Amino acid sequence: MILIIKNDKKDEVGKLIQWIKSQGLDVHMSEGQNTTIVGLIGDTSRVDIDLISSLDIVESVKRIQEPYKKANRKFHPNDTVVEVGGVKIGGDNFTLIAGPCSVETRDQIVGIARAVRASGAVMLRGGAFKPRTSPYAFQGLGAEGIELLKEARRVTGLPIVTEIMNFSQLDLFNDVDMIQVGARNMQNFDLLKALGQSDKPILLKRGLANTIEEWLMSAEYIMSKGNEKIVLCERGIRTFEPLTRNTLDLSAIPLVKELTHLPVIVDPSHASGLARLVAPLSLAAVGAGSDGLIIEVHNDPPHALCDGAQSIRPEQFDAIVGKIKAILPIVGKK
Amino acid sequence: MILIIKNDKKDEVGKLIQWIKSQGLDVHMSEGQNTTIVGLIGDTSRVDIDLISSLDIVESVKRIQEPYKKANRKFHPNDTVVEVGGVKIGGDNFTLIAGPCSVETRDQIVGIARAVRASGAVMLRGGAFKPRTSPYAFQGLGAEGIELLKEARRVTGLPIVTEIMNFSQLDLFNDVDMIQVGARNMQNFDLLKALGQSDKPILLKRGLANTIEEWLMSAEYIMSKGNEKIVLCERGIRTFEPLTRNTLDLSAIPLVKELTHLPVIVDPSHASGLARLVAPLSLAAVGAGSDGLIIEVHNDPPHALCDGAQSIRPEQFDAIVGKIKAILPIVGKK
Amino acid sequence: MILIIKNDKKDEVGKLIQWIKSQGLDVHMSEGQNTTIVGLIGDTSRVDIDLISSLDIVESVKRIQEPYKKANRKFHPNDTVVEVGGVKIGGDNFTLIAGPCSVETRDQIVGIARAVRASGAVMLRGGAFKPRTSPYAFQGLGAEGIELLKEARRVTGLPIVTEIMNFSQLDLFNDVDMIQVGARNMQNFDLLKALGQSDKPILLKRGLANTIEEWLMSAEYIMSKGNEKIVLCERGIRTFEPLTRNTLDLSAIPLVKELTHLPVIVDPSHASGLARLVAPLSLAAVGAGSDGLIIEVHNDPPHALCDGAQSIRPEQFDAIVGKIKAILPIVGKK
Amino acid sequence: MILIIKNDKKDEVGKLIQWIKSQGLDVHMSEGQNTTIVGLIGDTSRVDIDLISSLDIVESVKRIQEPYKKANRKFHPNDTVVEVGGVKIGGDNFTLIAGPCSVETRDQIVGIARAVRASGAVMLRGGAFKPRTSPYAFQGLGAEGIELLKEARRVTGLPIVTEIMNFSQLDLFNDVDMIQVGARNMQNFDLLKALGQSDKPILLKRGLANTIEEWLMSAEYIMSKGNEKIVLCERGIRTFEPLTRNTLDLSAIPLVKELTHLPVIVDPSHASGLARLVAPLSLAAVGAGSDGLIIEVHNDPPHALCDGAQSIRPEQFDAIVGKIKAILPIVGKK
Repeated sequence: MILIIKNDKKDEVGKLIQWIKSQGLDVHMSEGQNTTIVGLIGDTSRVDIDLISSLDIVESVKRIQEPYKKANRKFHPNDTVVEVGGVKIGGDNFTLIAGPCSVETRDQIVGIARAVRASGAVMLRGGAFKPRTSPYAFQGLGAEGIELLKEARRVTGLPIVTEIMNFSQLDLFNDVDMIQVGARNMQNFDLLKALGQSDKPILLKRGLANTIEEWLMSAEYIMSKGNEKIVLCERGIRTFEPLTRNTLDLSAIPLVKELTHLPVIVDPSHASGLARLVAPLSLAAVGAGSDGLIIEVHNDPPHALCDGAQSIRPEQFDAIVGKIKAILPIVGKK
Repeated sequence: MILIIKNDKKDEVGKLIQWIKSQGLDVHMSEGQNTTIVGLIGDTSRVDIDLISSLDIVESVKRIQEPYKKANRKFHPNDTVVEVGGVKIGGDNFTLIAGPCSVETRDQIVGIARAVRASGAVMLRGGAFKPRTSPYAFQGLGAEGIELLKEARRVTGLPIVTEIMNFSQLDLFNDVDMIQVGARNMQNFDLLKALGQSDKPILLKRGLANTIEEWLMSAEYIMSKGNEKIVLCERGIRTFEPLTRNTLDLSAIPLVKELTHLPVIVDPSHASGLARLVAPLSLAAVGAGSDGLIIEVHNDPPHALCDGAQSIRPEQFDAIVGKIKAILPIVGKK
Repeated sequence: MILIIKNDKKDEVGKLIQWIKSQGLDVHMSEGQNTTIVGLIGDTSRVDIDLISSLDIVESVKRIQEPYKKANRKFHPNDTVVEVGGVKIGGDNFTLIAGPCSVETRDQIVGIARAVRASGAVMLRGGAFKPRTSPYAFQGLGAEGIELLKEARRVTGLPIVTEIMNFSQLDLFNDVDMIQVGARNMQNFDLLKALGQSDKPILLKRGLANTIEEWLMSAEYIMSKGNEKIVLCERGIRTFEPLTRNTLDLSAIPLVKELTHLPVIVDPSHASGLARLVAPLSLAAVGAGSDGLIIEVHNDPPHALCDGAQSIRPEQFDAIVGKIKAILPIVGKK
Repeated sequence: MILIIKNDKKDEVGKLIQWIKSQGLDVHMSEGQNTTIVGLIGDTSRVDIDLISSLDIVESVKRIQEPYKKANRKFHPNDTVVEVGGVKIGGDNFTLIAGPCSVETRDQIVGIARAVRASGAVMLRGGAFKPRTSPYAFQGLGAEGIELLKEARRVTGLPIVTEIMNFSQLDLFNDVDMIQVGARNMQNFDLLKALGQSDKPILLKRGLANTIEEWLMSAEYIMSKGNEKIVLCERGIRTFEPLTRNTLDLSAIPLVKELTHLPVIVDPSHASGLARLVAPLSLAAVGAGSDGLIIEVHNDPPHALCDGAQSIRPEQFDAIVGKIKAILPIVGKK
């Protein structure tokens, strides 16, 4: 960390240096004609950059080391491969996860699970607890939804991933293969801490207004408590463009792969909120180097009225998977 | 709610109308030369607009009624005044809340409470549980911090407001006067539901990437469970401007006051993250019609190193309050 | 266009209807219990939606028809193919444009032109007039730069595209094959009008803060004056994410192809501002259905100090093109 | 400027230092255990930060000096006061500018000019050339509009400000008191250069997606050519919030006043696009320390159909001015 000291305050720098040393850090001074620079040497990940910036004598602060350690590729150069019920995510694997927005009935979830497995999906997704903007909207089947997911797993062999809403639900997720943290919970720090003490693989979605660094810090929260089985998921950020619900940030994929060793996948369904964009955005994600996709698929056109705007049908999913498989070897994936 | 039907799909509209009626709504049709419009009549707040938008035959959807009811000024024209330990928020009251970012020691919190009361603050804020981006940063004193806040209340008489992180902490907040929901928890729906079953006044901060409508829907979550004692708090939204941590959205103040009967206050400290902007933004908030302010104040310059970049000192707070008091009668506040 | 009339103002709707009819439009009324809806029938593209929204009696307005006509795919279902010096852009063509950020010397531009042609580029880009944030930065070689581009065209046969800064420069572009409108000029309406009277193909970049609809309206400006040879170019929008200069909005590609018949290409170099992201974002753009790419390439590592952060070297370009060619048949491109 | 050198590339730093020195700058090295820091000493405003960032051996770059000089308060501590036809803007003056969106007729502009002067406006605004998103919308009266503005000035004595669209119009503005650069032209660098060679006061609006630093760099463009009579104008930035057309960024006011000596005013009308928000946002701007306001006022309710959603009536303007005058002494303005 580098501190630029205000030119007219450089006489007061002694007290600051004393305080820095009291935090167990060393200091390197560099006095130019117009600028005094203080470099902090040691582990600065515990130093509060906002706090330092607020000091009267400090003009500005620049972090040199990233504030995350366990998630940092610098200290862990090889790709992490996360295993979920026998399925590998990360490295040169490409992992297809599919399923409905919400679990509704046994027939629905088993039917979709069979269909997406036939097309090449290796994991099943489905919402049991649903975060909804409106208190009057359907909030999911809850515990019963998880039971139906397990039933679909029993029938198809696909490991299951579903979203948790708060840590008091953790017991219900004992027999779930992977726990999803939704975008709105990405900075629910108490939930992250609790998941850090679990040994379940975690699918950590990026928050709608969160920077890549904040996202990695949320992974760091989980890892700092001991659980390193994390898969990141880009699902769009908030921008001014009104035609899509969110703006899928595919630049984040190569950046995340550079900054961390953790796998990162893409959710093209929630990103745009438009079923007809799922195919092009899925292929784009493959081109960007994503480690996988999580796609919403519904099965039953007559009941289409109960599916979200972002779901595609099994036959559309099948067509997308065909193209993905053709592109994968070109981008160095299995 | 109005549905625009695709021109080449209008023959299929019958099935949609049937489904709408099965939801307990009535329908009004209007067929133009190029456009067929279906108006939904009845309580459409339970209708999922994304779901309807996703239908093949629907070109677009427009909500006419706001999706919130209990928070809606149309159904409750008079200002709600929320009482917190004898202090009134809303109507023609202007409510000053002040205190440190984090509770640190008895001396600190009691000292600040005394100072801000002397300047005109009528409530005390202070963080016991702190949401921090980094797992390595100070996370607050927890339960002990709440005890210290109560001690400061005992000494000064100021009601206290402090932030909750998850609903399993609710018992710890039994003797707190007002519970704050932080920006990152604005869409922690399980927390909102739990608070809806409490009878505590709630300070509901706007999320960093949340629209005004989503903010009111979060208020509606709490109100739908029975608790109508809600004060909204604007604290800045995420934009591309890097010089401020967030961009304070003061247009939200008059808009919110138009859309809802609930009081709304402003947090100028977190909005910009810069202590030197607290004074101008406080006066701006008063001009915009805010029902109050919640300001971070620290007391002890020698310990400034442990305060955030956004805190001001008691003497600065005192100067701001002087100007606020002079402006209040001009904008119709007591 | 649909107007929702305020419930308590519906008695005053007569005057509004009279005014609408005076604009040459017809009206369809629909009175519900709580809502009066006025539908405007006819060509509403000239109606000012902000003006209507501002009327006291109007609660809200919804446009049904897009405000662009000549650019609208509804009225022109087939893909437009723009020809630039024998090169086709649009339809099932995929067009590779490459070249340096700025034209510097004859050797530089001819050398790069030869290299990118060898790899598969079919057009040459290069800046002669450079829009720079700082008045102290290099502003380009100007007219001399255009001469050097022509020389590179003479040697390699590649048609050239270069950016115009204002319409008084138009004479200098007489012998340029395609004129680029930069992101900062996307709403320089006088420039758009002047280009509409030219017969040159136009490369219209999306503005940093412009919606897709505004972008198509800028195309409409040019088309409304008679020039329909327009190629759109997505190059990133402004968001809160600091790690990339802009956020490439690849969802815009399939959306634009749905809304308009004009071709759309992607600039992965300016989008992120990072050379190491050019390869993944190029492949992502192909997956998203882009009609081409415009990529910055510099040739001379010893002079790398004078190239931008976003340029790649010819050998890197060659490797990217190899992968693109393998993906193109999968996405239905030649 | 500080360069952080990649740890594994520090052996190659010699060539970089040579190049920096060839640019007329000096260098200060600081080698830590894990980090090598190169400080650039001298005038770094000509150094291209993107160029340096792109070098293989550079991990990151931090500018210490602002890239603007003539606009920088560090080198010009006292407030600049810009005089426009006898009216002062800046310092402890508060300047009220008002008038219609577009000039329509002699009666309209003279009538409004008289009304706003009576309420306390000291300058008249009005659009002759209108930047419109749609080519089919009214584009302004052009040269005739400027003549009508002059007529209103003749009658009322109010100096006039109106928007220029391109520099070839400059002759038409010879007898205009102040030239406005609209938000969409903030980075029309050729226009800025031309205005720099004029001696007219310039009203420079902030672009919808431009940072404060970019805004000051655009002022620097004008100043670098010799014209230092610049007044900045905040008018809202693009965000995700759909209820307002833009989000007024009032934090920019105190920040701009800290960074530059130039005056800054606020346009509350274009910021939100909603007439009913003009009053609260005007008072908020005064609270934030603005040097003035530019407000849209229309005069003729029967013709209200031709005014924008953001205009208020003279009697509303009068009420706002009354409140502003009461607040001004509290914030230290005349």
